[in-house]
Amino acid sequence: MDPLDIPLLCRRAREASRRLATTDGAARNGALRNIADALVNHQEELLAANHLDTDRARQAGTSEALVDRLVLTSQRIQAMARGVLDIAAQVDPVGEVTGMSRRPNGLLVGQVRVPLGVIAMIYEARPNVTVDAAALTLKSGNAVLLRGGSDARFSNEALGRVLRRAVGEAGLPEDAVQILPPLDQEATRLLLAQSGLIDLVIPRGGERLIRFVSENARVPVLQHYKGVCHLYVDEGADLDMALRLVENGKVQRPGTCNATECLLVHRSEAASLLPRVATRLLELDVEVRACPVALPWMPGARMATDDDWGHEFLDKILAVRVVESLDAALDHVARFGSNHTEAICTRSYERSRRWLQEVDASCVLVNASTRFNDGGELGLGAEIGISTSKLHAYGPMGAAHLTTLKWIVQGDGQIRS
Amino acid sequence: MDPLDIPLLCRRAREASRRLATTDGAARNGALRNIADALVNHQEELLAANHLDTDRARQAGTSEALVDRLVLTSQRIQAMARGVLDIAAQVDPVGEVTGMSRRPNGLLVGQVRVPLGVIAMIYEARPNVTVDAAALTLKSGNAVLLRGGSDARFSNEALGRVLRRAVGEAGLPEDAVQILPPLDQEATRLLLAQSGLIDLVIPRGGERLIRFVSENARVPVLQHYKGVCHLYVDEGADLDMALRLVENGKVQRPGTCNATECLLVHRSEAASLLPRVATRLLELDVEVRACPVALPWMPGARMATDDDWGHEFLDKILAVRVVESLDAALDHVARFGSNHTEAICTRSYERSRRWLQEVDASCVLVNASTRFNDGGELGLGAEIGISTSKLHAYGPMGAAHLTTLKWIVQGDGQIRS
Repeated sequence: MDPLDIPLLCRRAREASRRLATTDGAARNGALRNIADALVNHQEELLAANHLDTDRARQAGTSEALVDRLVLTSQRIQAMARGVLDIAAQVDPVGEVTGMSRRPNGLLVGQVRVPLGVIAMIYEARPNVTVDAAALTLKSGNAVLLRGGSDARFSNEALGRVLRRAVGEAGLPEDAVQILPPLDQEATRLLLAQSGLIDLVIPRGGERLIRFVSENARVPVLQHYKGVCHLYVDEGADLDMALRLVENGKVQRPGTCNATECLLVHRSEAASLLPRVATRLLELDVEVRACPVALPWMPGARMATDDDWGHEFLDKILAVRVVESLDAALDHVARFGSNHTEAICTRSYERSRRWLQEVDASCVLVNASTRFNDGGELGLGAEIGISTSKLHAYGPMGAAHLTTLKWIVQGDGQIRS
Repeated sequence: MDPLDIPLLCRRAREASRRLATTDGAARNGALRNIADALVNHQEELLAANHLDTDRARQAGTSEALVDRLVLTSQRIQAMARGVLDIAAQVDPVGEVTGMSRRPNGLLVGQVRVPLGVIAMIYEARPNVTVDAAALTLKSGNAVLLRGGSDARFSNEALGRVLRRAVGEAGLPEDAVQILPPLDQEATRLLLAQSGLIDLVIPRGGERLIRFVSENARVPVLQHYKGVCHLYVDEGADLDMALRLVENGKVQRPGTCNATECLLVHRSEAASLLPRVATRLLELDVEVRACPVALPWMPGARMATDDDWGHEFLDKILAVRVVESLDAALDHVARFGSNHTEAICTRSYERSRRWLQEVDASCVLVNASTRFNDGGELGLGAEIGISTSKLHAYGPMGAAHLTTLKWIVQGDGQIRS
């Protein structure tokens, strides 16, 4: 078989998904526990394959930061196995029947939660995504096609062997998990065109990858482009808390999509808060780009340009703007936000309610760091991605978001008149 | 203003959607009741505009069947107004808070149901879709851009005036409802590219329109391509019931997406059922295209070709195939079905359960006509479309499907460690 026979691989996934749709949660959880054991038992094989990838990456001059995302260690493999066991322990997202009711003509009508079917993941060089995605799709009764980055090729192939064997030994179809080889653009386009065979594509990675998928897909896509997250410090806010939230949002992991990129401060708090922010961020080596009103209060800052509003820095850079009112803050967020994560720091009950109601973002927070918009932190367990489009899911997606509701109707011969 | 300044119209819709997101259900229901009154009170204006459209259509040689879909009458206007009042009487789909729980760090985390934002409808020449879509989107707190077919141009413009005035008089933004003029392909492409301003596009119409939208959209789309609906008559089924279901599914409205296109019959029932089906369908002027096994039992039928399986006839034509088993029927449906509507006629409890579980379609029925896959029949009230992709909604979509869940988080200064 040509490994790039995309339609054939998709049909195998479709066949596997038909079998998975008839399994019960216990069988799928058994397969997940098998996977967790197999990851630990085969770590030599996995580490050897991973060495090939990391050696190649280092020879190609890849930065150590990127190599670090690629590296597997015994500890990391054990952490992946624990993650799989956590997913096995979650409630079964499939099979729940909702809204069953009798229609006037006697039909019994309801909806049952079912797997989506076949999911394709397209992602970059993090082998743990391979395991997370396989576990979440299996948990939810879906078959998955995994197309990881070429940098992780050997790691993903080895993980694929281990995962498929573990699934097969548990009595489920091995084709529930298929690892695609790295594909060129043409092959990726062909994959993205398999409507009827693929129910959902989830791209994870840089904005370029996501745009490519989104522009070429003929099947539904869930994605987020970017996280331009704001923290608004309201009039009368607790400024010690505000300072903690700024620091945590900006520097705890600046490269993540839920890091704070822009601080909005009510004019009445600017004189008290901004010098403290400036001092602390200088110590933490964060560059501040301030609006003309904020600038005089922020030693070491440089003047913000128009490009700094709505910019996802993914770095130790913070835009700062003084606003006249909550309304002005809401307008700024509506204009420059990315529907990802928006936080307010306030003591006002009324303004906290307005923020929660009026801000359009997948996660809206009061008196908490933007960094909390994360599947684990919000209680989903593992996440397969964060959606900033509002269809199907808005925000972090766990196993339950890989299902849909199918109408079921039981009658005794009803016809329509 | 150039009426084709698409981005401007989209920004107005976005602004209106921000205001709508802060309204309560009572205000939106008040606007809906205003609309119902206004439709009845302005029927002269509506009928006059509709005459312009129907005259033009008749002059252009449009078939009376198509003109009939375009025609407004006083009775039809009153029916539209009653439909709007029904929607006003439905439960408010917006504002429900679900899954609120306390995380170990004290954060209170939950989800609130919110409008999607801005919805664009692209549809053909049925003015009632204009009113249904405006009412359902308003009910669910969304702004809508309505692009109807050019055949209904004057009707839609008149409806737009009436709808916008009624919304404005109720204190809601008039731009909650905007009627776009008929757009050429380039302008439609521009509309479909407004990601960030449009949250969802719903195309309704022929397969060509839907493919155009789906292939050109850079924003999420909900659609169904076609309905290839099967009825499987199981071994031991009640054949009187089977005959009723075939007749109702095929001829009650042959041109609809939930009409039965293909009858599958278990071999053991072929000799008893098929002659009766053939006789009845001959009386009803339905053409039968039968597989070689079925053909001898079906006087007047012609031999089916490979093209007849999976074909959406939308006409008085029925494909008929004899199968060896439930498994063979399931395989046929998996291969040739369109994930729309699939029915079984059976007396077996076990096989009814297998059908409900194993068939992948938006609506799966036991002992009932395929014609029941319809928002009204399933209890949704009005529907804005039927989705056969599984993302967000699968099957008929009502007001509740025009919402999403936004995460809300209340803390007291939590930071992430």
